[in-house]
Formats: sequence, C-alpha cells, structure tokens
Amino acid sequence: MKKIEMDITGVLSRTIGEHGIEEKDLYDTSMRLDDFKKKVYKSPYPFMDFGLLKSHIGEIKKIADSVKRFKIKNLVILGIGGSSLGTETIFHALLHPFHNLDTKNREGKPRYFILDNIDPHKINKVLEIVEKDRDKTLLIVISKSGETPETMSQFMLFKEVLRSTKNYTERIVVITDSKKGMLREIVKKEGYPSLSVPEGIGGRFSVLTPVGLFPSSVMGIDIEEMLRGAEDMYGYIKKTPYRKNMAVILAAILYLMDIQGKKMHVMMPYCERLSAFSDWFRQLEAESLGKAGNGPTPIKSIGVTDQHSQLQLYIDGPKDKCITFLYHGGEKRGIPDSIPYITDLEYLAGKDMKDLFYAEFLGTRRSLIEARTPSLTITVHEINEYTLGAMFFLYEMVIALMGHIYNINAFDQPGVELGKIYTKAVMGKKGLEKQKKTIEKDLTTKKHLIGF
Amino acid sequence: MKKIEMDITGVLSRTIGEHGIEEKDLYDTSMRLDDFKKKVYKSPYPFMDFGLLKSHIGEIKKIADSVKRFKIKNLVILGIGGSSLGTETIFHALLHPFHNLDTKNREGKPRYFILDNIDPHKINKVLEIVEKDRDKTLLIVISKSGETPETMSQFMLFKEVLRSTKNYTERIVVITDSKKGMLREIVKKEGYPSLSVPEGIGGRFSVLTPVGLFPSSVMGIDIEEMLRGAEDMYGYIKKTPYRKNMAVILAAILYLMDIQGKKMHVMMPYCERLSAFSDWFRQLEAESLGKAGNGPTPIKSIGVTDQHSQLQLYIDGPKDKCITFLYHGGEKRGIPDSIPYITDLEYLAGKDMKDLFYAEFLGTRRSLIEARTPSLTITVHEINEYTLGAMFFLYEMVIALMGHIYNINAFDQPGVELGKIYTKAVMGKKGLEKQKKTIEKDLTTKKHLIGF
Repeated sequence: MKKIEMDITGVLSRTIGEHGIEEKDLYDTSMRLDDFKKKVYKSPYPFMDFGLLKSHIGEIKKIADSVKRFKIKNLVILGIGGSSLGTETIFHALLHPFHNLDTKNREGKPRYFILDNIDPHKINKVLEIVEKDRDKTLLIVISKSGETPETMSQFMLFKEVLRSTKNYTERIVVITDSKKGMLREIVKKEGYPSLSVPEGIGGRFSVLTPVGLFPSSVMGIDIEEMLRGAEDMYGYIKKTPYRKNMAVILAAILYLMDIQGKKMHVMMPYCERLSAFSDWFRQLEAESLGKAGNGPTPIKSIGVTDQHSQLQLYIDGPKDKCITFLYHGGEKRGIPDSIPYITDLEYLAGKDMKDLFYAEFLGTRRSLIEARTPSLTITVHEINEYTLGAMFFLYEMVIALMGHIYNINAFDQPGVELGKIYTKAVMGKKGLEKQKKTIEKDLTTKKHLIGF
Repeated sequence: MKKIEMDITGVLSRTIGEHGIEEKDLYDTSMRLDDFKKKVYKSPYPFMDFGLLKSHIGEIKKIADSVKRFKIKNLVILGIGGSSLGTETIFHALLHPFHNLDTKNREGKPRYFILDNIDPHKINKVLEIVEKDRDKTLLIVISKSGETPETMSQFMLFKEVLRSTKNYTERIVVITDSKKGMLREIVKKEGYPSLSVPEGIGGRFSVLTPVGLFPSSVMGIDIEEMLRGAEDMYGYIKKTPYRKNMAVILAAILYLMDIQGKKMHVMMPYCERLSAFSDWFRQLEAESLGKAGNGPTPIKSIGVTDQHSQLQLYIDGPKDKCITFLYHGGEKRGIPDSIPYITDLEYLAGKDMKDLFYAEFLGTRRSLIEARTPSLTITVHEINEYTLGAMFFLYEMVIALMGHIYNINAFDQPGVELGKIYTKAVMGKKGLEKQKKTIEKDLTTKKHLIGF
C-alpha cells in the first residue's frame, strides 16, 4: 500500500475550467522539471547527500545519550527560522499534543521550550521556569552562521543562568558551522559539546541534519527511521517517471499556478499533527523563491478550523489561490448519542468523529471544486518518523526544482541582509553610524502619526 | 499620552514611490468612508450598541461567580471560528504565556483547553485529561446558530463524560441564540445555565458579547474594562475628524492597497501577546470582505520570528502585499556580558533585550521602506483589557466601513454553506442523497492519483 498519495483532480482545467491547469501544460512543464531533476541527481545539492546526512548520526546519538545522566527536566532550544522550524514540526507531529502539561503525557521526557523569538515578556517567563531547575536544564543553541543576534543574545542570558551550576558546560550543546563564526569560536574556548551544520545546507534545508535531528534524538524520536523515509523518497523521486512523480508534478503545479495568477499557495492540513508542517513549508517556499520580484506567497491554514475563518474567501473571493490539502485520517472516536431527543442530530449521533473529520474535508474540497478554486490533496496514511522524513524531502526537492524553473538561486536570502545591518546600527555597532542616523530620522519625522 | 498610535509614513507614495498611496487618494477615500461612518453612527450595527453589550454583564458575572464553588481545574471551551478566536486572543494577550504549565503561573485559575477543531487525535487526549477531573471541569459550549456540527459533536462527547458526576448540569454553560437552534432547545430541556449571543451580531463580531466575555470573566479578566476601552474607541471614532481618525484612515489604506494590487494584508505583531490578534483579524477580514470575486487576503506573520522566514519574500518578492506592524515595547531584560572575550558581541552585551526587539522592528521597517514595500505601524503602548477592547472595536469598525466601500454585506458568509451541506450528506443526513452521490463519485474517480 502507498504511504503518501497525491490527488490532483481538483487542480485540472478538465475539473474546474479556466482557473485550472491544462494537462498539456502540466506534462510539458513536468518534462522540463524532469530534465532539471536528472541534472540535479547527477550533481546533487548537499541536502540530498545521504552519506553526509547519515555521517552525523553517530555523534548525535552519542551526545544525546551522554546528557541522559543529567535527568533533564527542561529542554530549551534557542534558534530562529530554519534553526527551529524543523524541530517544531517534528515535535508537533510526533509528541503528545499536551506534552508539557504533565509527566504522564511526556513519558519521562523533558518539557521543551523552543525560543524562536525575543519578546522579553516571554523570555523572562522561560527564564523564571528554568531558574527553578537550572541544574536539570539542557540548552541547545542553534545558529548556522554562529552570529544570529537573536540567538546570541538569548545564549548570553541563558548561559548566565546556567553557569552557577555544576557541569553546566556539559548541558549546553551548540550546533553551528564546523569552522566559521562566533559560536564555533565560543565552543573552542569554552568546551561545549557541539555538532556541525554540514557545509552547503542552509537553515531551511537543515531539518535532516543535526539541527533537527539532535533535539529529536534527545526526545527519543527515531532519527534513523526519519532519514530512511527521506532516503526512500529520494530514491522514489529518482526512479519514478515524471507523469507519476509526486515531486516533479507538484513542482509543476505550484509553478503553473503562480504564473496563472494563483500566487497564494495555501497549505491546509486536515490533521492537527501536521499543522506545524505548514510553518516549515512557509519558510521553505517564501525564502527560497521570493526573489527578483517573483515568488508565490505560502499561507498556513488549518482544516477544519479555517472553514469557519478563511473558506468564505477561498470560495467567493478572487481566484488568486491554490489550496494544498494535507489529509490524514487519524484515529477513531465514537460520538455517543447523548442528546437522543433532538432528531436533527441523527446524522452525528452514533457516528465516528474520524468520519465527521473526513466528511468535512470532502465537503470542503467539493465546494472548492464547484467554486472553481484550484486544490490538490496529499494524503499521508500514517504519521510517523518515516513519512515525516519523506514529506520533508519531498518538499525540499519540489522547491529546489522550482528554483530551477524560476531561474533563481533557491539557497540564498539576500533580501534580509539590509534589515540586519539596520538592527545592528540601532544597537550601536561601530561603523554603522550612517545607518543609525537614517533610523533616527525615521523616528523624529512624525508627520503621519495619528492616535487614540 | 496616547494609548494607541498609527504611523502611516511607510505606506505613502512620498515615502516609497509608485507602490505607495497618493495623499490625495488617501484623503478622498477617507472622506467617502467618513460619510459612511456618519451614516453608520446614525443607525448603528448591533455590534456598536454598547447598551446592548453592557446589558449582558450582570448575567455573565453571576454565572462566572456561581461556578467558582466547584473549584474548577479544567476549563474546556467548545467553539469554532468566531466562537473561539476572540477568547483565544484575549487569553493569549492577558494570561501567562505558560498558563497551563503550573499552578503558580495560573494563580489559582483553571487550565484551559479551547477546542476549535475536531481531529480525533487531539480530542481524545483532551478527553483523557478531563476524565481524570470530570467533577472539576467546566464546559462552555458556544455556537450562535446552535447547530454547528463540530461543536455539537464535541458537546455529545463531553456531555457523556461529565454526566456521571454530581451537579454536572451546573458545570455546562451554553452560549447561543436566545431563541433559535438546537442548543437553545437543549438548554430548555436539560436546564443548563446559558447566555445569549445578541441578535444581529455574527460570530466574528461577537468578541465583546458573552461569547468572548464569559470565558474571560471565568479567568478573572476585567471585562468591564475591556468594554470601556471599546466604548472609548467608539467615541473617538465618532468625534475625530477623518484626517486624524484611525478607523477611517486605516480602512482607506487597506482598501486602496487592495485595489492597487496589494491584495495580501499581512499583520505582523512585534509582541508575543498580540500574536493571536492576527488570527482574530484574519477571520474578520477574510469572512467579511471575501465576496463576489473580491476581497483582500489577510496573512498572519510574527515579528521577529518571520524575519527569518517571510521577510525575504516581503522585500524581494512581488509588490502584492501591505504590512501592518503591531508594535508593543514590552518589558526590560538586561543582556549580561557573559561572553566577554568576543568583541563582535559588544553591540549586544550589556544592552537590553527590549531595545534589541525594538531595533529589529525598526531595521525591518526601514528595509521595507527601502525595498518600496508598503507598511504601516500601530503601536499599542500598554497591553491590557482596555487597549485590547479598543483594538477589537477599531478593527470591527474598519471592516464594517470597508464593507460599505466594497458595496457588499460584511456580515454574512454565503460561500461556506455548500461545504456544510456536502459534509452532512457524507454523514448520511436525510434528503441529501444526491449530494452524497456527488462525493462518492469524487472518491471513485481515481484517474489523477499518484503515490509514494
């Protein structure tokens, strides 16, 4: 039986008319993408190098094992963007939905706090929590460049709290570039256990490196199985003819939708556990393809919840969107007939919640088809390490292939550098006095300010 | 001192050129909207009727007081869309960010679980949690129509769990239409305490009715102060000339941006506590304005987090977006100089996290200006009941005014009815056999299915 299936019926013009994709266009574009694919497989990107990815497993497991002796109560992960979104996605998919709530839910594993922001209000609260158990706190500090100001400033704060405890250097694990950057320098000087982000793998493609795998390993997640799923997907994409190849067809659809004016790519999981996968995809697509005045906008949406928030717009608004449903059937829960005297509830009473969930998905998809809004469905038959690894790799390949057809570098992010310079200027970094003045001018010009 | 301020510099063509708004257009449109505003104040919509809103306070507080005697440990809220987003926003803004984590954080208040979805995986876990303390669980069931299948099926499940306990009918509070619908019928038959959703106030405009105020009251939030903030905003919008009127100017900007091709309205709070406000706004704008082939698409984004995910696209991608920053300065947290030997960290060491947070915001805003991407900033100087109430009312008025200029009914959602019918058809509701066949055909036609 298939583990992941894609149904593209709802995106074809034969189903929805002019807003859909002509099959000729789909297969022409897929053929072009298939050529890119063959080239890419001949000289693979680092994120596709499973020898490289697997070479880190030993060290990851060694460190994860060695920290067990501390009976960690709090796992604090400092990282932002690609340094945290993969872990967030994995934890959300595979841990108990109320993991932090009580010890039974987390089965002896630590509570976790992923700090992907620097609002002092929340940071202060996490510091309060950690201060109580500072000798039972494991800190993972992740920054590929080793320079990220958000992560470095968090690190300075948390180091200060931990340093009063015994062996604190063994409870700080650093994941950064193997040679360059401040964090690597700090590791050398202070002797923290550390792991490397393999060269040539940027943040948003790093979930299958120590960046995503080390925190997962600490939580007892089977990281080898995750890599196995990813590698099997690698093999499937390599060998499957383009008309049956999910990566090639999906890349062709997302590209064609964009150039046909469906510039918003909504990802709408009908599966709580996959809801964070949309956040991960959102970075992957936006940061890889949003360049040179082009690039679709990825949007997170949640089924069934957003039927009561966004569906009106998807159905009745402009035809500028393409919806990808991620569907997973999940488990059963019988709906008891506890209000038997209301006959209008007959269609629910005695049925199963799982079937209602499925019916809502089917009803939504059908109503999009009738509204001529393009959609496709990816069904993930089981949620586990293997399928999650496969889904990560599938989308990484999709975006890498799309980079080729847009003729852009999918692996850089030049647009964000300017903001970083201004931030440092405001913070008083030397040599940036001119930029600081520009911001000061922004703040003193108050002509267009109104208030309550 | 002002409590809420709006800086529109970054959206004007004098700042960013052709992608911005000409001041003449802005003030012409604002004048038109001001005329609508005057008409609306002459015959106000129900959501603007503060006499009506305040008339529920007594009953809300009476029931919230009376459930105190049960020493509630778990507060479970069943509701979806407008029935939950307001409460989620209020709790997120005003309760401890790790409220459910331990008793100290929640200061004697119950843990809360807002069930705005029906994925059985998560529902089963919440049921497990509730089963342990079923006699200390308060259930709030919210559906304006009293017919929402998601909420009704959840209700049947939770009622079954609670009914084995003493006085369980006093620990189920129903909020629904005062006369119509199944839920009202059930209240009459089974005798639950209940509150009404005032007539003419739809889900997405209902946060200041019992829908948002009763759960808040149970959590000890000052709901009168929230209404006071909203009513003061009502007065401010009424009396302030259009050139200085935040509601009128904001409605004009969002409308003009949409018709100038900036069809994506990103709301990007630099404030953890306001991050759920974007979810609330997202429903309000999408469901109110997404009609007749028109309507902007609201998008949630988080500062600083999404600088490392979406900013590349906002800067370097297509000019199809307008960004609204919500900024709140928050509290202080000194960054200790705990890594003194790295001189490149001088710009952070000894500074404050609050200032870094602000610098990141300023740097991002400046980089958008230089990229000619339109943005505006709303600064909320304090986060409390009063300003939150004011912000809710501000945006409700903005959307109501926009409805006028689009010449659509901002208060219905006709597009979602079809999906609901199909859902019921799949579940076997009588009279919908034809629709059921359509879905069965969807499921048996497998021509465009590929898999891994």
